[in-house]
Amino acid sequence: MNHMKDTSIAIIGTSLFSKAIAAEFASHGATVGMVADTCGQSTVQFDVEELDHRQTHTFLCTTDWSWISETTCVVTSLVGEELLAACRRMAPYMHEGQLLAVFPGYFMVEPITRILADAGKSSVLVCELTSSPVVCDALGDGTIHIHKRKNKLKIAGIDAAEGLQALNCLKDYLPMLALAKNAVETSLENINTILHPLPVLMNLATVEHAPQRFRHFIDGVDEHISHLMHLMDDERLAVGAALGLELDPVLSHLKSYYGDNDARTIYEYIHTPECPYDDIRGFGLASRYITLDVPGLIVPTTKLARSLNIPTPLHDACIALATPFLP
Amino acid sequence: MNHMKDTSIAIIGTSLFSKAIAAEFASHGATVGMVADTCGQSTVQFDVEELDHRQTHTFLCTTDWSWISETTCVVTSLVGEELLAACRRMAPYMHEGQLLAVFPGYFMVEPITRILADAGKSSVLVCELTSSPVVCDALGDGTIHIHKRKNKLKIAGIDAAEGLQALNCLKDYLPMLALAKNAVETSLENINTILHPLPVLMNLATVEHAPQRFRHFIDGVDEHISHLMHLMDDERLAVGAALGLELDPVLSHLKSYYGDNDARTIYEYIHTPECPYDDIRGFGLASRYITLDVPGLIVPTTKLARSLNIPTPLHDACIALATPFLP
Repeated sequence: MNHMKDTSIAIIGTSLFSKAIAAEFASHGATVGMVADTCGQSTVQFDVEELDHRQTHTFLCTTDWSWISETTCVVTSLVGEELLAACRRMAPYMHEGQLLAVFPGYFMVEPITRILADAGKSSVLVCELTSSPVVCDALGDGTIHIHKRKNKLKIAGIDAAEGLQALNCLKDYLPMLALAKNAVETSLENINTILHPLPVLMNLATVEHAPQRFRHFIDGVDEHISHLMHLMDDERLAVGAALGLELDPVLSHLKSYYGDNDARTIYEYIHTPECPYDDIRGFGLASRYITLDVPGLIVPTTKLARSLNIPTPLHDACIALATPFLP
Repeated sequence: MNHMKDTSIAIIGTSLFSKAIAAEFASHGATVGMVADTCGQSTVQFDVEELDHRQTHTFLCTTDWSWISETTCVVTSLVGEELLAACRRMAPYMHEGQLLAVFPGYFMVEPITRILADAGKSSVLVCELTSSPVVCDALGDGTIHIHKRKNKLKIAGIDAAEGLQALNCLKDYLPMLALAKNAVETSLENINTILHPLPVLMNLATVEHAPQRFRHFIDGVDEHISHLMHLMDDERLAVGAALGLELDPVLSHLKSYYGDNDARTIYEYIHTPECPYDDIRGFGLASRYITLDVPGLIVPTTKLARSLNIPTPLHDACIALATPFLP
């Protein structure tokens, strides 16, 4: 692996978001390599298209996870059990002062920190970004199309000091990063908790009848469901406020992520040209909108709420309706 | 009002269910009169059709509520605030030993008993039937079509002794009546609590898009929603069991009300020939399926559950999702 020795940032996985953030780092001057069991060849190549601009990226890629020991920073968009398994696998190769950055925020900084501590790697710095720095999708030919680059994205470590260290490591590559108080804040700001499970559950028969046809936002969010999403968002904001965190309402996130306009509700925003949600489909009970977002976001939020004596009836409703179908 | 002096049973209102139960009493030899502010004439006449049989019923009808003082029994299918208002209005005219029978069961025996006590009429006997003795609908020409006569229907007073007295008053006219322990049992057995709100809420965007087109059971209850309804029914049964009440599962009610078969789930039963639910439509957020059944059935059930420390997450979910839209 000598040929990759100069690489300073390791991206774990070759998913859409892994490739997109690899391109983001490279465009800002970082040396990037990818680690994935599926790397059939020694390089990964793909085009990134943004506005009128198209660029071909080529990254070294290895199936040898020990290579991460030679990097200064490891970045992954893995989630859930897959993320924890990857952390257990990476732990032996990580070193003091190395940064492990995960996104999106799913309350994983604490369990990852425990995994590293159990492996004797307490000196690794763990941080979390609320979501992906770019809004993107994959075109048919594998080209990654960047819709928007978020203009503000929260980052945090397990506490303020570690968050600041992490920010200083990454801010040259991801200039939209803004320091959050802690990694509870970055996870509470993951608005998938509001956007994903409720519309699936409140359209259950229609979604399950034809998940590939059902457009999650266009078909699934009418004024009533939008109203419930705002009330559910108020519960999330109340949990944040009780923790002394200044969370942004879901509508502010949407406007910040995708473009500002005069929309007053989620429903209105969905039907503006700024919103890239027109053709989101394929997310039923068996999808990550339920299997990941209910246990990974809604359940931890209600546990925080319980400890703070904050009622979260709409979060609880999603848990009650989804739990019987969780694997 | 001398011409109505012989009448022993007063039916309040001239709704479909009022007329149907009036015909039921009359067919079993009772003398029946109707009381309604809308009585334009001194008689109400309508046909009742059942199998090949058709019979014309004519009942005396009055707008003078004081006439109920001359009857031995008052029967009403009014619900909610309308029922309580009617009880306040009737109280001055009611007398010792008179029976006030209400249906369907909406936890109203206690508040009605309080209204009568406040009016100095504690000696009036109040009882509740779980639901209508007959399954019926109104044909276009006003004819009442009787689909089925229930073969078992629970009746109760505020306690066992009053329930037995009420049963003895009514059993000659409504032979399907079976004594329940108390009026909590008759209300907990009202399966509208399981059948109505959940399918509306879990199809909210589709229902509200076109309430008149959406078939509540055929379009609204798939295997997933049926599964949730059974789990919600388990919560209801657990509340009953904790109160020492032997409640019947919702599927047993359906089979008893409409006809037995081999269906193992609500979903399966809906799609059998016995089930008369094919064309139930028009029930959205503004309908009694939500405005009556959530506050009138689900909320009281959860209050009982709270006092018994029984978790009712699916009842709670319905309350959380419906409450923002209640008037």
